[in-house]
Amino acid sequence: MELTVSQVAKFISGKLEGDGSAPVYGVAKIEDAHEGEVTFISNPKYAKFIDSSSASAIIVGMDFPATDKTIIRTENPYVAFLRVLRYFHPQKEMLEEGIHSSAVIDPSVFVGDDTRIGAGVVIGKNSVIGKNCRIFPNVVIGEDVQVGDNTLIYANVTLREQVHIGRNVIIHSGTIIGSDGFGFAREGDIYHKIPQVGIVIVEDDVEIGANCTIDRATLGQTIIRKGVKLDNLIQVAHNVDIGENTVIAAQSGIAGSTKLGKNGIVGGQVGIVGHIEIGDYVTIAAQSGVSKPLASKTVVFGYPARPIMQAKREEAALRKLPDLLKRISELEDKIRRMEKE
Amino acid sequence: MELTVSQVAKFISGKLEGDGSAPVYGVAKIEDAHEGEVTFISNPKYAKFIDSSSASAIIVGMDFPATDKTIIRTENPYVAFLRVLRYFHPQKEMLEEGIHSSAVIDPSVFVGDDTRIGAGVVIGKNSVIGKNCRIFPNVVIGEDVQVGDNTLIYANVTLREQVHIGRNVIIHSGTIIGSDGFGFAREGDIYHKIPQVGIVIVEDDVEIGANCTIDRATLGQTIIRKGVKLDNLIQVAHNVDIGENTVIAAQSGIAGSTKLGKNGIVGGQVGIVGHIEIGDYVTIAAQSGVSKPLASKTVVFGYPARPIMQAKREEAALRKLPDLLKRISELEDKIRRMEKE
Amino acid sequence: MELTVSQVAKFISGKLEGDGSAPVYGVAKIEDAHEGEVTFISNPKYAKFIDSSSASAIIVGMDFPATDKTIIRTENPYVAFLRVLRYFHPQKEMLEEGIHSSAVIDPSVFVGDDTRIGAGVVIGKNSVIGKNCRIFPNVVIGEDVQVGDNTLIYANVTLREQVHIGRNVIIHSGTIIGSDGFGFAREGDIYHKIPQVGIVIVEDDVEIGANCTIDRATLGQTIIRKGVKLDNLIQVAHNVDIGENTVIAAQSGIAGSTKLGKNGIVGGQVGIVGHIEIGDYVTIAAQSGVSKPLASKTVVFGYPARPIMQAKREEAALRKLPDLLKRISELEDKIRRMEKE
Repeated sequence: MELTVSQVAKFISGKLEGDGSAPVYGVAKIEDAHEGEVTFISNPKYAKFIDSSSASAIIVGMDFPATDKTIIRTENPYVAFLRVLRYFHPQKEMLEEGIHSSAVIDPSVFVGDDTRIGAGVVIGKNSVIGKNCRIFPNVVIGEDVQVGDNTLIYANVTLREQVHIGRNVIIHSGTIIGSDGFGFAREGDIYHKIPQVGIVIVEDDVEIGANCTIDRATLGQTIIRKGVKLDNLIQVAHNVDIGENTVIAAQSGIAGSTKLGKNGIVGGQVGIVGHIEIGDYVTIAAQSGVSKPLASKTVVFGYPARPIMQAKREEAALRKLPDLLKRISELEDKIRRMEKE
Repeated sequence: MELTVSQVAKFISGKLEGDGSAPVYGVAKIEDAHEGEVTFISNPKYAKFIDSSSASAIIVGMDFPATDKTIIRTENPYVAFLRVLRYFHPQKEMLEEGIHSSAVIDPSVFVGDDTRIGAGVVIGKNSVIGKNCRIFPNVVIGEDVQVGDNTLIYANVTLREQVHIGRNVIIHSGTIIGSDGFGFAREGDIYHKIPQVGIVIVEDDVEIGANCTIDRATLGQTIIRKGVKLDNLIQVAHNVDIGENTVIAAQSGIAGSTKLGKNGIVGGQVGIVGHIEIGDYVTIAAQSGVSKPLASKTVVFGYPARPIMQAKREEAALRKLPDLLKRISELEDKIRRMEKE
Repeated sequence: MELTVSQVAKFISGKLEGDGSAPVYGVAKIEDAHEGEVTFISNPKYAKFIDSSSASAIIVGMDFPATDKTIIRTENPYVAFLRVLRYFHPQKEMLEEGIHSSAVIDPSVFVGDDTRIGAGVVIGKNSVIGKNCRIFPNVVIGEDVQVGDNTLIYANVTLREQVHIGRNVIIHSGTIIGSDGFGFAREGDIYHKIPQVGIVIVEDDVEIGANCTIDRATLGQTIIRKGVKLDNLIQVAHNVDIGENTVIAAQSGIAGSTKLGKNGIVGGQVGIVGHIEIGDYVTIAAQSGVSKPLASKTVVFGYPARPIMQAKREEAALRKLPDLLKRISELEDKIRRMEKE
């Protein structure tokens, strides 16, 4: 797996400045990289580490300042570094070929070529699993489920009946897709369950973290669109629609029937109320509580969430509030005295 | 499964106004309903959709305004609609009869009539499973567990030892009931584990969402009373007591030994501190942090949670605070000038 | 299992005051204890229950006031009580000896003496399980995993490849250790997955609650140090480092690469931003949002988190804000009038 620095530069179509003959055995972060390792600087705040680094080469941007260290210039250093990382750490095959003898696959299930299914997996009637999938041990897949090609489902995941999973999807362990939406019709003090007869659609290139819960629709569908990335422990309620390439950090929750636009960024532990629409390219800072629709390209923060500059102004003002109370009492005293005079 | 509109009206004991002869093939939401479908209006804000709807019949309340659309009047349109929904989408049977050959059921376990147990289920010694239950694949049930009749436990659930589950309960995938409470005795910097030797009781008609965690009591019991509905990813700590028919939205957490009254409504991502008592018919808005006891029928919001009208007044005032800072500086200037004069 | 009060006193090396001859059959909390039971008072606020208690003996501190009840004095009543609790509730053995026939253990796996492995457990290549472990049903352990002696892994846990678990560790059901960190390199609107090739290290004497998610490092390691206690539904992102004996309550989340010091106390539903350092002996109140580094021994609260005395002053001031608005309007009126004069 050894390469030279020159070979690395060629591999990522980068421009080498410095000694290309040094051997490269692996990759590391700039703070940790030693001789024989390639590293990168994408965020300028890490540039300070360059002088003390003994890395054999550093992948940097096209406009990175000149240095006497060996560098490889490229348009997107992070993405280039990823390619080198993947070279040295190829995805390891962790399931045996074929279907493990302890898996319980209904005879009506179709399993595509080169798909591997681990021990203890259970797949219900009429489900279709695409080509070249990896389904890890003790996953449970219900009836009438579709899983696209090249999809990876880690151990102990549950896919309930009629869920549709696209191609090149990754679902991490413990995640539940297609559980019943939380819907009840109230009659006095009693809640009657509303049957949840809709489905969940997870489109291509989605990644879903560990121990998430994605509820099926009441009627219709809950949909996670192409390229969405969800972190761990995220709640997606019934009939939610998450737009393409939106990224959501851990422990956030989206209430029923809300529609998120595409290319959004949602921080961790955010809560979004039900039945609202969020535009495209919206950023919601961590722990915010969103209770109203948001126009495209807005950046919000706080509880309740409001435009981030306003929220920060208000927060700064709140810091001054105890002092303000004193100033107002002083003003009142002065005025009282002036009135007496 | 086809009905006429008249038959639907009769089925829900409703009062038909309009053409009863049209055939009905299914149900849909008012925004989506087409000819051949029945829909409903319960919340007046959806009344605006009535004119553009091509539904063959609309279930409405007794006092809904007259219309030239075909309507069926009934006391509770939502509950009536549910009955029609269930008619067209009967609960599908998704487990084979009996106990799957790969399930590992201790010989001492009692399993009631008509109960179906899926592949890979494990049930420990002396547990008792009622009649007509459905236990989905890879569920693990410990020793001395009791599960009542007609209870449905979805895939990958864990019930630890000595847990009691009532009748007509639904437990969604990935939920853990009876894990150890989080209790330690501190001695200097070291924490000693407090054995958690209590139990969990889940009464009849409870529904628990996916990936929840309900800890067993330290001593005594954690109890989820009759008719409680929990959404996904909810934390219920040791010795908590949740009153009848209380509904809790996703990602909320209740700390140890807290007692919630009956008929409460708790929004999503709410946190409730330990060792307090919350009255009956209390509403706690989403993302609130409750740190003090709450009297019955209070409605609270915020962090820390306070009466909702007060919280909203304070929030509104906070919006004005940056402006207020300016007004006060102006006042101070004026007074200074007046004092000089 | 019956003891006398004298025997209990001797067992915990305590100083008996009162009748030592009464028999003891069990333990209970001070509010609940009856004749034949031993209880304790550690927190002075429970002292009020002493007069009405019919417990046969009460374990108290060395400086507890004199009483006519039978008491046993000891340095740490809580820890002493725990020893009595353990005597009456010894850890029950809940797995059969050896490895269940339905477990799928790769032939290359090493399993230590006296370890018990339940039904449906799957263990991948080259993993090493220590002595005297308990691995409950349907746990999935990947390749190259190490589990130390005396470790307890409850049902439906997933340990991904290369995870290292120490000795005397407890992992509750549904927890996922070693799932991929949430890391993507952005190129336009598309996110490229960053391979997560690091590991997770869980040191000795750690307890991890149910349905937690602990992600593997991107490169290097995520580390949970000796004696850490995590409650349920906690998110630990890639490359996080949690210091010795730190305790974290349920539903908290720590973003990537953040380092927590030792002996910290983190409340429930706390969020901590990525890439910061938190000192030793830090206390973070429930629901706080920590966005900046914290020095050792600080106590913070709020969103954003700030020193607790400051946060409380600001909160108190916020309560007065609506009233303040009126006072300022009055001042402005008065000044306007004075200016006219």
